[in-house]
Amino acid sequence: MSDEETPSLPYAEQILPNWLIRRAATMPDRLALSAGDTHWTFADLDRAARQCAGALAARGVMAGDRVALLTRNRAEFAAMVHAMPLLETVLVPLNIRLTAPELAWQLADVGARLLIYDDDRASQAAAIQHYVPRLDIVTVENLTDTPTLDLPLRETIDLDALHTIIYTSGTTGHPKGAMLTYGNHWWSAVGSALHLGLYNNDCWLVTLPLFHINGLAILMRGAVYGASVILHAAFDAAAANRVIDESGASIVPLTSRMLQCMLDERGTQSYPATLRYILLGDPAPLTLLDVCERRGLPVVQTYGLTETASHVVALTPADMSRKPGSVGQPLLPLEVRILLDGQPAALGRVGEILLRGPTVMSGYVNRPDATAAVLRNGWLHTGDLGFLDDDGYLVVVDRRNNLIICGGEQIYPAEIEAVLLAHPAIVEAGVTGSSDTEWGPSPQAWIVPHPSVSLDETGIIAFCRERLAQHKVPQRINVVEALPRTAAGKLRRCVLRTMNAETPASEYG
Amino acid sequence: MSDEETPSLPYAEQILPNWLIRRAATMPDRLALSAGDTHWTFADLDRAARQCAGALAARGVMAGDRVALLTRNRAEFAAMVHAMPLLETVLVPLNIRLTAPELAWQLADVGARLLIYDDDRASQAAAIQHYVPRLDIVTVENLTDTPTLDLPLRETIDLDALHTIIYTSGTTGHPKGAMLTYGNHWWSAVGSALHLGLYNNDCWLVTLPLFHINGLAILMRGAVYGASVILHAAFDAAAANRVIDESGASIVPLTSRMLQCMLDERGTQSYPATLRYILLGDPAPLTLLDVCERRGLPVVQTYGLTETASHVVALTPADMSRKPGSVGQPLLPLEVRILLDGQPAALGRVGEILLRGPTVMSGYVNRPDATAAVLRNGWLHTGDLGFLDDDGYLVVVDRRNNLIICGGEQIYPAEIEAVLLAHPAIVEAGVTGSSDTEWGPSPQAWIVPHPSVSLDETGIIAFCRERLAQHKVPQRINVVEALPRTAAGKLRRCVLRTMNAETPASEYG
Repeated sequence: MSDEETPSLPYAEQILPNWLIRRAATMPDRLALSAGDTHWTFADLDRAARQCAGALAARGVMAGDRVALLTRNRAEFAAMVHAMPLLETVLVPLNIRLTAPELAWQLADVGARLLIYDDDRASQAAAIQHYVPRLDIVTVENLTDTPTLDLPLRETIDLDALHTIIYTSGTTGHPKGAMLTYGNHWWSAVGSALHLGLYNNDCWLVTLPLFHINGLAILMRGAVYGASVILHAAFDAAAANRVIDESGASIVPLTSRMLQCMLDERGTQSYPATLRYILLGDPAPLTLLDVCERRGLPVVQTYGLTETASHVVALTPADMSRKPGSVGQPLLPLEVRILLDGQPAALGRVGEILLRGPTVMSGYVNRPDATAAVLRNGWLHTGDLGFLDDDGYLVVVDRRNNLIICGGEQIYPAEIEAVLLAHPAIVEAGVTGSSDTEWGPSPQAWIVPHPSVSLDETGIIAFCRERLAQHKVPQRINVVEALPRTAAGKLRRCVLRTMNAETPASEYG
Repeated sequence: MSDEETPSLPYAEQILPNWLIRRAATMPDRLALSAGDTHWTFADLDRAARQCAGALAARGVMAGDRVALLTRNRAEFAAMVHAMPLLETVLVPLNIRLTAPELAWQLADVGARLLIYDDDRASQAAAIQHYVPRLDIVTVENLTDTPTLDLPLRETIDLDALHTIIYTSGTTGHPKGAMLTYGNHWWSAVGSALHLGLYNNDCWLVTLPLFHINGLAILMRGAVYGASVILHAAFDAAAANRVIDESGASIVPLTSRMLQCMLDERGTQSYPATLRYILLGDPAPLTLLDVCERRGLPVVQTYGLTETASHVVALTPADMSRKPGSVGQPLLPLEVRILLDGQPAALGRVGEILLRGPTVMSGYVNRPDATAAVLRNGWLHTGDLGFLDDDGYLVVVDRRNNLIICGGEQIYPAEIEAVLLAHPAIVEAGVTGSSDTEWGPSPQAWIVPHPSVSLDETGIIAFCRERLAQHKVPQRINVVEALPRTAAGKLRRCVLRTMNAETPASEYG
């Protein structure tokens, strides 16, 4: 039988060899994943992925099925991510902080075939099954103990095929499932490497949750790059600092709050030269960036969304002092445009941020209208506001849904928070609108005070008056123990509104 | 006018921002190209490319036109490479060692609109124009002094569009123009980076001719990676050694003969740690590899063809001692297969090497039959012989039809045989390499004379000189009674080497 007669799919240019299988062939003994007591080489990870695929098949999961995962960060999460291409199934990573009804809604919406969960989320899984009776559920432990079905696994990856559906909350209504293809993940990995470089000993430290795109993307990159990944079950400042020292972690994605905690924990001790980059996915206070620059810490401000398969715009440390407040320029395969009144905005003018390129999702699952609303001629309409400076560097002014419009003036909470964080008595700050003035909502602040600095509310307001236009000065300062944040560490401004000074912040994990 | 109404091309996933323009925006001041006294930053190179595009347009060159370049290595070559996407024109780099008739044939075949040449190739250009009267010709100097036409330049790159046509001598008859798309070059750059890594200070030293794919590919990589390129007009061992010491050249593609010259010139002095890799594109003698290993020189054996837009299989230094004689494993986006009797061969069995992936050319210009003969279901049938060892490492046993590699030039015996057969005194001709020059094997001919025409060896060599580049002219003509052939009548060139003029050819049936 000649190769032309081989009963295989016709060749298409978007078909690549499976990247994990290739890495297992070219560097079988290199560390792929370290998570707790589990240390897997690329050969081990490949084996684990095949084992997962066999176990899923034994449970009746077939090509095209959607497999939901409700677990904390753990090695099996990575095995599951890489099992998908072998079976041509689609992964739906779930946010473990959500309630059972919220999760049930997503599982029903996506038409999940199977829910895989941690042992300690058994009651939640049972509650979910109550809402979605036809859903099959299994613990990670039981699944991986299942005798596997020995079937031919697909050894190539179709860049146009779907790998992941990640639900993301929008400004209104139910969350929407962003559909990410292998191509989205591949181009994200390549675009990031062309920006950050690719060193032979690169090692990524992941403390972000894997059910968010910025965590998940690193598992993909690890296999594409042949880079090691160290996975922490949850963020711990001391543990993160230790890994940077002892394991040579070279690239560490964090939120600015996590970075602040690590700096606080570390004191004045410097970081080793093996640490190439700290990636920040949320707007960092300028005071924090100042500290990093003084300490020579290589911080890269980035901007991206679930819908763009992780960050797509990035600043470099070299530009940090030159372009404070900017998130940089688009990665090579991406384009950025600012839209104002339906037209591309002039440099310096604030408008909606549009993104285009091969990392942009194919759409929202089951939501043609929502998809058509945000994806037009390849451009993703992010709903975020920003402008391009004279050199083409993007400045994100605010996420659109946080905009406070008071007396006809547009007020961006992030701007006020930056001022508050510059006050010596304030550790964390969140601002949102409250609807208590005749002009509409006015800004109101929630702050976490520094334990050893005495707080003077009048003084804080005076401090803001000196630095902000009158309409931007918070009408009220609420003192709380902690601010509500997402699992990824992002401030949940929408929750602020329902808080008052007496509410223990821990209710808002 | 909303962005949906903007009169632009509809979005297609294979459209990327022009990579040089992006690098000029993100790293305007980084050194892009150093050639003699010319030192261009990425902003400079971008400017030079735009100037070239404007000058070409002023000369009447339009989108789709093919522009031939007959120059030694020089900065303007790079500007021309990057001018192509701005105008959507196609570059045809010409081998400066070829004769005017050989070049004229290629120019006519490709339908070149314009030939750009070095000042010192004026007589050659005039001779070419004699053969191809409608061809417009201009020196590099006159072209770049031309007032440019100020027209809108295309700022994106379509990965499916053609960038380069490079002529390559095949097994039979005339050379064929391999058509390489931007996608071929892009994937070559990405695949290579995923193998070699990408360091922030990477600097490529180019001593190979830019009219060959292994030289040209580096100009593309420089822009994709944002890496510096140092360009030498010609190979000079001492100069190459000096640049590695003084300019921190980190990746240096060479032939094994060049590497041997550099080692001889250098003596025992070691190389600096900034030298990350020496890439060898031809089979290196094991003795040379031994020396490199003992001296700790990071040599990467590679394998690739013009038709695959540079190397697609590569060994790493770490595998050098473990896999001597192998060229390694395919780069991540590529697949390798060995075909024997029309079927994939078992590991260890020698067969024809097949390659598949996004760096494989789209075909030969004007040669649908030749294209169909080598490209089947995405697989490029290389004509080279090799096998995969137990770990999937490729060993190349023989180059297609006994390709002679002399002084870095690929010489195809069939092309020389065709010229010999055109001589009235010659009935049969066979050519192979003999290893008697310092640059490696040079061509040697075996001929069967016509019984009724008197033979004049000097005349035959003069006949070849008129029709072939100097390096292709046989060094010796051996007269025999018959040539060794297979039962099917195919010439057994491997047997020629063991023949001498006295050996009765009948022994080699």
